[in-house]
Amino acid sequence: MITLASDFGTPYPAAMKGVLCRRTDARLVDVAHDFPRQDVRAAAFWLREVLPYFPPAVHLIVIDPGVGTDRNAIVVRAGEHALVGPDNGVLLPAARRLGGGRDASLETYVVDERRLEPTEPAGGPVGPSATALSADSDAGGNEGGREGPASATFHGRDVFAPAAADVHEAGVDAPADLEWLDPLDGDPVNCSLPEPTLEDDRVVGEVLVADDFGNVITNVPGDVLAGCDRIVANGETVPVGETFAAVPVGERLATVGSHGYVELDVNRGRGDEAFGLAVGDGVVLESAGTDRAN
Amino acid sequence: MITLASDFGTPYPAAMKGVLCRRTDARLVDVAHDFPRQDVRAAAFWLREVLPYFPPAVHLIVIDPGVGTDRNAIVVRAGEHALVGPDNGVLLPAARRLGGGRDASLETYVVDERRLEPTEPAGGPVGPSATALSADSDAGGNEGGREGPASATFHGRDVFAPAAADVHEAGVDAPADLEWLDPLDGDPVNCSLPEPTLEDDRVVGEVLVADDFGNVITNVPGDVLAGCDRIVANGETVPVGETFAAVPVGERLATVGSHGYVELDVNRGRGDEAFGLAVGDGVVLESAGTDRAN
Amino acid sequence: MITLASDFGTPYPAAMKGVLCRRTDARLVDVAHDFPRQDVRAAAFWLREVLPYFPPAVHLIVIDPGVGTDRNAIVVRAGEHALVGPDNGVLLPAARRLGGGRDASLETYVVDERRLEPTEPAGGPVGPSATALSADSDAGGNEGGREGPASATFHGRDVFAPAAADVHEAGVDAPADLEWLDPLDGDPVNCSLPEPTLEDDRVVGEVLVADDFGNVITNVPGDVLAGCDRIVANGETVPVGETFAAVPVGERLATVGSHGYVELDVNRGRGDEAFGLAVGDGVVLESAGTDRAN
Repeated sequence: MITLASDFGTPYPAAMKGVLCRRTDARLVDVAHDFPRQDVRAAAFWLREVLPYFPPAVHLIVIDPGVGTDRNAIVVRAGEHALVGPDNGVLLPAARRLGGGRDASLETYVVDERRLEPTEPAGGPVGPSATALSADSDAGGNEGGREGPASATFHGRDVFAPAAADVHEAGVDAPADLEWLDPLDGDPVNCSLPEPTLEDDRVVGEVLVADDFGNVITNVPGDVLAGCDRIVANGETVPVGETFAAVPVGERLATVGSHGYVELDVNRGRGDEAFGLAVGDGVVLESAGTDRAN
Repeated sequence: MITLASDFGTPYPAAMKGVLCRRTDARLVDVAHDFPRQDVRAAAFWLREVLPYFPPAVHLIVIDPGVGTDRNAIVVRAGEHALVGPDNGVLLPAARRLGGGRDASLETYVVDERRLEPTEPAGGPVGPSATALSADSDAGGNEGGREGPASATFHGRDVFAPAAADVHEAGVDAPADLEWLDPLDGDPVNCSLPEPTLEDDRVVGEVLVADDFGNVITNVPGDVLAGCDRIVANGETVPVGETFAAVPVGERLATVGSHGYVELDVNRGRGDEAFGLAVGDGVVLESAGTDRAN
Repeated sequence: MITLASDFGTPYPAAMKGVLCRRTDARLVDVAHDFPRQDVRAAAFWLREVLPYFPPAVHLIVIDPGVGTDRNAIVVRAGEHALVGPDNGVLLPAARRLGGGRDASLETYVVDERRLEPTEPAGGPVGPSATALSADSDAGGNEGGREGPASATFHGRDVFAPAAADVHEAGVDAPADLEWLDPLDGDPVNCSLPEPTLEDDRVVGEVLVADDFGNVITNVPGDVLAGCDRIVANGETVPVGETFAAVPVGERLATVGSHGYVELDVNRGRGDEAFGLAVGDGVVLESAGTDRAN
């Protein structure tokens, strides 16, 4: 099985699927292709939460604002899973969880793009051609057109998809046998999700992501709500509920989301709008006192 | 085969797919994950129109504004199909059609979540943890964090997907053999799509849904347009056409949609905007007279 | 394998998938269902760029603003691929590339809808029914309700999906054996993407499409940028870069996209907004002089 995740929208993921289907019969499952554009941290969060529910698989992940620069293309082996994507941190939080939480269990390899067998499109690499505007076109600099097997701007199709397919065919256990993979010298680029500051009656955290419902997902562990009926979020007191329906339709609440973090929500409404919060904003949670009856 | 429908957007459906793939090799086919949020009636309409085109399958349906409340999770067996989702009516119109139109042919079961085997995420259920804000955290009330196998807010992942996978593995014929299913005591929650009032020269109906093209789909059977070249819709006379192209680009018309109902459309434009109509709005259709030539 | 492409949004593609799954076990892969509405040229461009990356397949393509008119439903055999869709040009650019660039290699067939076996929905073709508003309902004209196996407005479900499934089952080599296919008399409707005018120091082209990132894709071959460090695009001088990261975040540049054409982009931003360009707008590229150092 190969899962696919990107910030591509459409139809670019289809080109990746075509390449995958040319190289493997593996089952393909889309995770999402509308992750916030070029937002490594948001994608890293979601992948860490979603990928552990999959059976052993190769995970093709292309959130890659640095495409075409000298950032590496890497393969991270984590337990029975392998993750393939750019070395910008987006793979790391998910890889750590899939590997059981220990960095030491991860094996990281660098893709040598020049040794990776390219996927020729049907009909051949015809592409458009024309005369250069510059009289100086033999003098180096930009070379125009396509140069070699990999385009400069679509490594999802030309590097990551071929690599993911070939890792799948070799088996997750065997990346070291692939001659176009070399062990990474040093550590991969890290991506740490921010940790909240916990005090006795106050937690200072931030918004990690907002989901498509508008639920505001913070980095504050849900445990802090234990025993609380109400909480003060950024100065406003809201009920704590186990479910959205704990409050009337249209009312705000704090709850523990399915990922275990404190969420700021509205029952059948949008928490991001009601709380005026966006990704990265600070969230201060305080105890609303101990005036509960029981 | 398992089909998936929800109002989740992304990436939550991927967590459901992961769980399904952990429990079954069944083919997975997405129906849609962008149904209007928490709109049981709209989803019920679309599912009734779309699911009958599928071969025998398990249909996983999660439009669930009452997630975490005491509404039941149910399995409805309808002919060679089984539908799995919340007991809020969303399954019923499709189930009736798949079952041949007779309520008596449907068998409904309740999921006992406590007996359903959970799906452990890879790397274990680590999740975040922290100290509670409340000094009173052992005193009951909200318990924080994850409590048991099912989260309070993501039953798609923790209840419905496991149930759908296990029904698929047992076979649609055999839900009674699954020890975590009990026959429903009484009738499932109903969802009836509104019926129009038909008179000789006047039909009073309403807008069921608007599709992504902006076509306004009413609850009025297409038969009422038989023999009409023109019709009066909410006071305005528009042509009746068999196809959008029966009128010039940008012009309004009434037609019979692929589901058999009267639609109010614009050729290559948006009927919802041109007619000023939204879901639930009333639609009065009247005869435009018999001044046709033939 | 069958790929699916349309401008349907959701959930209409699911009805096509249901029909396909009723008639074949072929693997289904979505290309995109959010192509710009009824924009034959944009879809034709994307399909030409994406489909060649797939292995031999049947490609079901429904961008069909003339649905229900007398335009034909066609099957085009191109090399080891077959394309199924409306005869409005949308298949042609991709078919030519899949067929190796020679029109002579394409075989085109017309679907006789009356001889195509329909797909009955489960529960039977019940549909709604009612009395006609017109006293004149036996006099011809619009017939209301569903007439025969094919709806007038959803040929994706009722014509193209059955045809694609049956072509897949017969084999791409054998469309001539399908008794509901007749060789097309004459040529299919053409769709030519516009060609730029190339002069020595000036290229007059136009915008073909903008992608989901806002990158503006022109019809100007990337070769014209060879040797250029800067270029004048519609009067404004911008750097030429191999990658988005060649300029600071938020800055404009010209680059060669993964399809081989000149793109006008913004690093981590939207080129369409920054350049004020939309589909069909003219783009004049001029040499920025030869004042480069090397």
